[in-house]
Amino acid sequence: MSTIWRRGIHYLERLKAANIPNELIENGQNRVIDASLTLIRERAKLKAELLRALGGVVASASLLGVPLGHNSSFLQGPAFAPPRIREAIWCDSTNSTTEEGKELHDPRVLTDVGDVPVQEIRDCGVNDDRLMSVISDSVKLVMEEAPLRPLVLGGDHSISFPVVRAVSEKLGGPVDILHLDAHPDIYHSFEGNKYSHASSFARIMEGGYARRLLQVGIRSITKEGREQGKRFGVEQYEMRTFSRDRELLENLKLGEGVKGVYISIDVDCLDPAFAPGVSHIEPGGLTFRDVLNILHNLQADVVAADVVEFNPQRDTVDGMTGMVAAKLVRELAAKISK
Amino acid sequence: MSTIWRRGIHYLERLKAANIPNELIENGQNRVIDASLTLIRERAKLKAELLRALGGVVASASLLGVPLGHNSSFLQGPAFAPPRIREAIWCDSTNSTTEEGKELHDPRVLTDVGDVPVQEIRDCGVNDDRLMSVISDSVKLVMEEAPLRPLVLGGDHSISFPVVRAVSEKLGGPVDILHLDAHPDIYHSFEGNKYSHASSFARIMEGGYARRLLQVGIRSITKEGREQGKRFGVEQYEMRTFSRDRELLENLKLGEGVKGVYISIDVDCLDPAFAPGVSHIEPGGLTFRDVLNILHNLQADVVAADVVEFNPQRDTVDGMTGMVAAKLVRELAAKISK
Amino acid sequence: MSTIWRRGIHYLERLKAANIPNELIENGQNRVIDASLTLIRERAKLKAELLRALGGVVASASLLGVPLGHNSSFLQGPAFAPPRIREAIWCDSTNSTTEEGKELHDPRVLTDVGDVPVQEIRDCGVNDDRLMSVISDSVKLVMEEAPLRPLVLGGDHSISFPVVRAVSEKLGGPVDILHLDAHPDIYHSFEGNKYSHASSFARIMEGGYARRLLQVGIRSITKEGREQGKRFGVEQYEMRTFSRDRELLENLKLGEGVKGVYISIDVDCLDPAFAPGVSHIEPGGLTFRDVLNILHNLQADVVAADVVEFNPQRDTVDGMTGMVAAKLVRELAAKISK
Amino acid sequence: MSTIWRRGIHYLERLKAANIPNELIENGQNRVIDASLTLIRERAKLKAELLRALGGVVASASLLGVPLGHNSSFLQGPAFAPPRIREAIWCDSTNSTTEEGKELHDPRVLTDVGDVPVQEIRDCGVNDDRLMSVISDSVKLVMEEAPLRPLVLGGDHSISFPVVRAVSEKLGGPVDILHLDAHPDIYHSFEGNKYSHASSFARIMEGGYARRLLQVGIRSITKEGREQGKRFGVEQYEMRTFSRDRELLENLKLGEGVKGVYISIDVDCLDPAFAPGVSHIEPGGLTFRDVLNILHNLQADVVAADVVEFNPQRDTVDGMTGMVAAKLVRELAAKISK
Amino acid sequence: MSTIWRRGIHYLERLKAANIPNELIENGQNRVIDASLTLIRERAKLKAELLRALGGVVASASLLGVPLGHNSSFLQGPAFAPPRIREAIWCDSTNSTTEEGKELHDPRVLTDVGDVPVQEIRDCGVNDDRLMSVISDSVKLVMEEAPLRPLVLGGDHSISFPVVRAVSEKLGGPVDILHLDAHPDIYHSFEGNKYSHASSFARIMEGGYARRLLQVGIRSITKEGREQGKRFGVEQYEMRTFSRDRELLENLKLGEGVKGVYISIDVDCLDPAFAPGVSHIEPGGLTFRDVLNILHNLQADVVAADVVEFNPQRDTVDGMTGMVAAKLVRELAAKISK
Amino acid sequence: MSTIWRRGIHYLERLKAANIPNELIENGQNRVIDASLTLIRERAKLKAELLRALGGVVASASLLGVPLGHNSSFLQGPAFAPPRIREAIWCDSTNSTTEEGKELHDPRVLTDVGDVPVQEIRDCGVNDDRLMSVISDSVKLVMEEAPLRPLVLGGDHSISFPVVRAVSEKLGGPVDILHLDAHPDIYHSFEGNKYSHASSFARIMEGGYARRLLQVGIRSITKEGREQGKRFGVEQYEMRTFSRDRELLENLKLGEGVKGVYISIDVDCLDPAFAPGVSHIEPGGLTFRDVLNILHNLQADVVAADVVEFNPQRDTVDGMTGMVAAKLVRELAAKISK
Repeated sequence: MSTIWRRGIHYLERLKAANIPNELIENGQNRVIDASLTLIRERAKLKAELLRALGGVVASASLLGVPLGHNSSFLQGPAFAPPRIREAIWCDSTNSTTEEGKELHDPRVLTDVGDVPVQEIRDCGVNDDRLMSVISDSVKLVMEEAPLRPLVLGGDHSISFPVVRAVSEKLGGPVDILHLDAHPDIYHSFEGNKYSHASSFARIMEGGYARRLLQVGIRSITKEGREQGKRFGVEQYEMRTFSRDRELLENLKLGEGVKGVYISIDVDCLDPAFAPGVSHIEPGGLTFRDVLNILHNLQADVVAADVVEFNPQRDTVDGMTGMVAAKLVRELAAKISK
Repeated sequence: MSTIWRRGIHYLERLKAANIPNELIENGQNRVIDASLTLIRERAKLKAELLRALGGVVASASLLGVPLGHNSSFLQGPAFAPPRIREAIWCDSTNSTTEEGKELHDPRVLTDVGDVPVQEIRDCGVNDDRLMSVISDSVKLVMEEAPLRPLVLGGDHSISFPVVRAVSEKLGGPVDILHLDAHPDIYHSFEGNKYSHASSFARIMEGGYARRLLQVGIRSITKEGREQGKRFGVEQYEMRTFSRDRELLENLKLGEGVKGVYISIDVDCLDPAFAPGVSHIEPGGLTFRDVLNILHNLQADVVAADVVEFNPQRDTVDGMTGMVAAKLVRELAAKISK
Repeated sequence: MSTIWRRGIHYLERLKAANIPNELIENGQNRVIDASLTLIRERAKLKAELLRALGGVVASASLLGVPLGHNSSFLQGPAFAPPRIREAIWCDSTNSTTEEGKELHDPRVLTDVGDVPVQEIRDCGVNDDRLMSVISDSVKLVMEEAPLRPLVLGGDHSISFPVVRAVSEKLGGPVDILHLDAHPDIYHSFEGNKYSHASSFARIMEGGYARRLLQVGIRSITKEGREQGKRFGVEQYEMRTFSRDRELLENLKLGEGVKGVYISIDVDCLDPAFAPGVSHIEPGGLTFRDVLNILHNLQADVVAADVVEFNPQRDTVDGMTGMVAAKLVRELAAKISK
Repeated sequence: MSTIWRRGIHYLERLKAANIPNELIENGQNRVIDASLTLIRERAKLKAELLRALGGVVASASLLGVPLGHNSSFLQGPAFAPPRIREAIWCDSTNSTTEEGKELHDPRVLTDVGDVPVQEIRDCGVNDDRLMSVISDSVKLVMEEAPLRPLVLGGDHSISFPVVRAVSEKLGGPVDILHLDAHPDIYHSFEGNKYSHASSFARIMEGGYARRLLQVGIRSITKEGREQGKRFGVEQYEMRTFSRDRELLENLKLGEGVKGVYISIDVDCLDPAFAPGVSHIEPGGLTFRDVLNILHNLQADVVAADVVEFNPQRDTVDGMTGMVAAKLVRELAAKISK
Repeated sequence: MSTIWRRGIHYLERLKAANIPNELIENGQNRVIDASLTLIRERAKLKAELLRALGGVVASASLLGVPLGHNSSFLQGPAFAPPRIREAIWCDSTNSTTEEGKELHDPRVLTDVGDVPVQEIRDCGVNDDRLMSVISDSVKLVMEEAPLRPLVLGGDHSISFPVVRAVSEKLGGPVDILHLDAHPDIYHSFEGNKYSHASSFARIMEGGYARRLLQVGIRSITKEGREQGKRFGVEQYEMRTFSRDRELLENLKLGEGVKGVYISIDVDCLDPAFAPGVSHIEPGGLTFRDVLNILHNLQADVVAADVVEFNPQRDTVDGMTGMVAAKLVRELAAKISK
Repeated sequence: MSTIWRRGIHYLERLKAANIPNELIENGQNRVIDASLTLIRERAKLKAELLRALGGVVASASLLGVPLGHNSSFLQGPAFAPPRIREAIWCDSTNSTTEEGKELHDPRVLTDVGDVPVQEIRDCGVNDDRLMSVISDSVKLVMEEAPLRPLVLGGDHSISFPVVRAVSEKLGGPVDILHLDAHPDIYHSFEGNKYSHASSFARIMEGGYARRLLQVGIRSITKEGREQGKRFGVEQYEMRTFSRDRELLENLKLGEGVKGVYISIDVDCLDPAFAPGVSHIEPGGLTFRDVLNILHNLQADVVAADVVEFNPQRDTVDGMTGMVAAKLVRELAAKISK
């Protein structure tokens, strides 16, 4: 188990040593988790009821924040991202129309069901497996309320595993995944943690939650990363050959014969010049326009998506990366809604 | 009504125009608010049950975040503070002992019940009065669970009104307030908003929730501010005369004949050299040591407290003001717990 | 009327209420405006006399600063740009030769007639219409002194209207405009202000001051923006299709049959990675080299130009955007002078 | 002659070599200078006429910016300060009342006559002596218009010499000077420049423009600085002994038997913790409150003042030093006006 | 053994596994260490020969950099400090005279023997004990060359142990230590590392290298810190009582009956407002003037000193903390030399 | 002689005036230089012995830092780069595999022989010619120890001259040079300094140390720069025509008929968006991927290389340019080693 949980765990161990009955703790944890899920459910229900009353909506993107941070500290980096991305989406310095003309103030394009209370749950000493289940359950609660489709705001990349698992389980079969990232995130485990942000796509492929997995923007990959890619049949497009692959990637068609397409964007797929506010600076990445060209031209029924690894603590003073993450979310909302 | 709510309201007006029945919206809002309060209650209950099982605790500080931001934008400034303050409290670069020797990892000194989901509630179109009630209700839920005492993380200074109101109503009478700030925050209203962060102490005094109100650090005050101070019998200590008042302020005894003492610290009471991460830079303030001297020597039964107006978006790159806010919270926890 | 003027106006209203005769104020305003224009005229005359004495110059770029800032505050953002751009033009860290070999220290390439005293005029309570006239008059004073051609340093984009109006009126007919920007700036009005930086090209087209208007770099445009474009016959090149349009845009020929070509560069036409110091961060823009390729290959008699919307308050610590704006000015000076 | 002028001079030398008649240049310079002074005069006249019409004002502070920067570059550092200080004076984040209750929006307390067009004059190749005269003449034009009293915004400290010279000449005798600074600025010359910001008080004392000169905050002084101090009878209060001198300095009475008192505040008198945006970081300075205590308690008829050496290029991201400089200006306006 | 060495060690283990004979490695390490010490010796000798030829110098401060960084990374934080402090000492923005009038350009006041090549030695896989000996040996080489006295630039606080050990061994007995710091650095070990920067004064006291140890500025101390203090007879002056202790601390007399006085200044003794560029932000510290008052009034024969824990990676953009560290070094040089 | 040496020289002149015998100084300088070279030799020997014992290595990159800074100050800018680049190479936020799969932790790919003690040698008053010889000697000492090949970390671009001279002399003939830079650095001298960073390639071509010199990324070049290029037969590829030249540059084959290929990368060859931490911001440069495409596809036996002009004092807060410089070093190490 990673050191992420340490404060909560430490606290609990201290209490156990003080002869606090285990049942007392577990009952409390259960009640807190139940209340957390109820809050998500009620918000999703309200938003969906309104959309259904409006009528004529087949699919509508709904923001779900998952403020889960990596690294050894209690609260850090990408855990602070969801409120910053929301602020940037609605920021006065830009208008509310997407590049292809959709209006974000229209609830048929974008609604918001709030954040999974990750910090509150962790702080009660809930363990890793359980937390991942809560995230999956939250995603399913959103999907239960048609026409909502989850547009998840990370948090670090570890959240893609519980999110994709929920999407696949809810839809009853694998999806195709378009994954933009500097790293393959497909290592068996990282420093002993199987839920690490470097391993989420290994978990996804092992679970059979995806059929095709296309990775674009890769430029930091080890021998193990390439071997795992081969093992799981991943289509890895490295930046080394991007000028050669560009034609193909700007004309993708995905999702045929599966339940839909999932898009996972790690903002570090971009060159750090375009997105400095990330934890892992890896020069030589995509331009912002490269990413939009791939998204705008993609032919797919996008059932869910995530934007992860924006780290506000490393952003520029004027919040450029926040604006970049927000624009990715905005264009994804336009892609999802119909 | 301030423009703060605009996105939610705008959204609702659009829906009403689309003939969505009002009842549908109100039912949904009620269910979301209920779920929000349930989550606070369950977390407070768990923490208090554990403390009661441990035994021997008369009073224990419990963090309650209220991420409410001022200004006209959807989400901004002090709304981002609670997670940053929590991070700084547990930051590896300092130890977990307060200046006078209390251990913060001991739950008898400090626990955490999480944040009021302000953004989630606002986004459902809930109005001002209702939101203020939710904040008051949350504070009462914490106080219900002895030995917890609320140590509130703002948010802007507007939160002090619903918090003090709840404390006073729960205890059944007024409290004495030690208020450290560059501004008196006692204007009748600000740009037409009676819940503004510039008016919270007018609301508190009108409501009879405080008997004595001592304001320390004042250096930006208008004629109206001084008149309102006189009208409500406020003891205003301006920085102009601080060298003369220091002796008195470093030897305060408060709370006699009332239900207890409330401490409200606006981090801009400090000179901006010590706390640059604030929305209102007002040179000529207290040093950090001045504040600690006042707190350490205060004789009082502190029943609740808040630390407000830390604005992470204006902090230095290395997060100095976050550390400053966190140390104020740490020393307040030591003052409250017993 | 926008809130921009508020301090001056407020001041005047106070005085009127105090029975100060209106004539006293108007006479004073007139004398201040006359003195302002005299200063511009004398500087332009001196510079042009010297050039004419040198001989052999057909056209020479002359800097004219217009420190007019947008938004609601008294003085802000782009209003601080002209001195910063000048500093960067002559900065020791680069040499004084343009990319195609012109020498900037040669007065036949570049001179400077200083700034329109915008703040001083506003502060006397002069209204919008009048201020716009002063800007137009200043431009004409420069054009009166052959071989000077105005190279205007903004300021926000609202200045392009009075500048182009003056150029067209002075030359006696419309010009062609090459407009590089993330936004079309062609809205009818913005928050009720017809002189807003979002409306300057609507004013220009309505006035008949331009025949062709090419907009390049567009990536934030609403339905109204596209409709206004169509209404005025604007050739809008959006970033979505830049890879397709590149060939055409890098081989433009403009100005046939009209009085000349005007170039207006909003530095936010660049991706914010290349120009972070702007008020409106809109990812997905041009690279700096894209802009130079368009400029270097343009076939046109450039009669005037502007570089606007550089916001020093949002620039990086090492002033990168200032250097970017300055290099645009340098290359434009080379394009203009002959 | 310093390298400050180099671009203008270089330009002129080039022209002379090209056989441009000297008279052409001199005539042009004279017309530009005349126009510059006319603009100042008209603005001062308008403001004063209004005040006289209002009536009942004995003395009123009027801002005059002198954007003159030191160092070898064309435009730099403190030259950018005047517009930034004005912005901070009227900044929305603070109110418009001084600490002792004067209202800044009242023109009887503060008006503004704009900036001396230093850059425009320099750029015409005008030499040092002449430029200093233009500054002196501008100050006299303001003083001519009772009840205006000049409150000068630097610029670097070199401007204090022409300003004090004008004040003394206009009043017909020496003044007493309260000079707050980390450095004595009393060297005979600096790198051969007698108008350097390190020599202004040598020029003032030599000229007999001051009787008493009190220097407070000194902590960077050479042997020559102490000797020059002794030679001119300067009362130098070094920070080394400030705790001993505090009583005296917080109870000063100046100006008896002379024409009035001049206050010159170099913002680096403050410790860099309070004012990081300066060119010369010298730890160990005054607190902001120390400075206010000295000013508030000073008994004097303040006839003019300056605030110099704020360097916006070195300020913090949130502009703290700008706010500090602005508050000094605000409190000086309150001190001057009556 | 701490992870600090990891890259070197890792490298060696890999080689050992590849059957590289151990002797080959050890011989190489010895030759590298010998060469490192020779370089220090030759530089010290040259500087001292010159001073002895000049004559009349009893004691002269000589800079010795020890770029040793703490934390788990290969190279970090305070390891970058020595060249930055040197740059700031000679920075053009201040003069070369100390507050009490000594001239730093005079080699009788200050010379420089360069840095111990810590990185180069570590990178050869040399272990902790050996590295500490190299540091001690370097200090002794400087002391061997009268009249040089070591003024050591850290690096982190772990270097004080080998430095004080060398000073004491060379002088043949204990010294008195004036230690300014936010933390007591007297823990038995930190995360298992006995050479940690949190344990250096435990090592010094255990070794008998100091008689009196006065700690000033303390405000982050645990129970163990106070117990260790008591155990070793440390005189701990906490910030909580500084206003009470000030009189005593500003009139210290140390070193009677011992071999001399050592001064160790951790820049985090200052409040972070005065020195933000440190690894451990601990609000409530000394002002810069407080520190100078203590130093200037100290009666002592200062035989050596260090300035540690300046972290350039966390400094402000304009390098304020570097200037602060440099001024401490400058004033210490004045104190040492005679 | 440039002012770079001024502190050392000043110091020596003072001593000579004090009748210190010249011989004393020269002997000391010689001993310091000898010790410096011995330290480099011993480190290179140790690293090479280990590699030879491992066996099977033909060529292995070995880092040699040359912390030589330009400009007039004592220590500045690029002089601080080598330790920062080393830190970034081994930074935890990225893995240790190069893009084409080499493992950096393998000493057969990369070792480190440390820094030439430039500051220590300068500070002893050693002159320019001598210092350049020490740098050349250091490079030769590394090359003497097969299979080490020098991968030099600047420092400013002036170091390329002594490095290439050493490489060519050691190999016994000229090399081909691939030089990526915004500037040609081929001026005869700069401000009278023939060793300036703007003149290194003039020195190299004059000395006959290179046969072909290809300059890529050029966008700031004067008439003299182009003439010198022609004079020396340099192949200058300007950014103006990069889209046309790309095909050729991404398929280079160099080094036929000479002793090998040298690669010199000035990080300002990149557009400042990708590498803001440089002294000379020149917009319009290469993308990071452009550089990698050129390097990865180059056919050549790379005998040595340098990465210069990274200026940590101008880098972003999160050290992006340091990561960029480090990745260039990493990919060069992969290119060199075999």
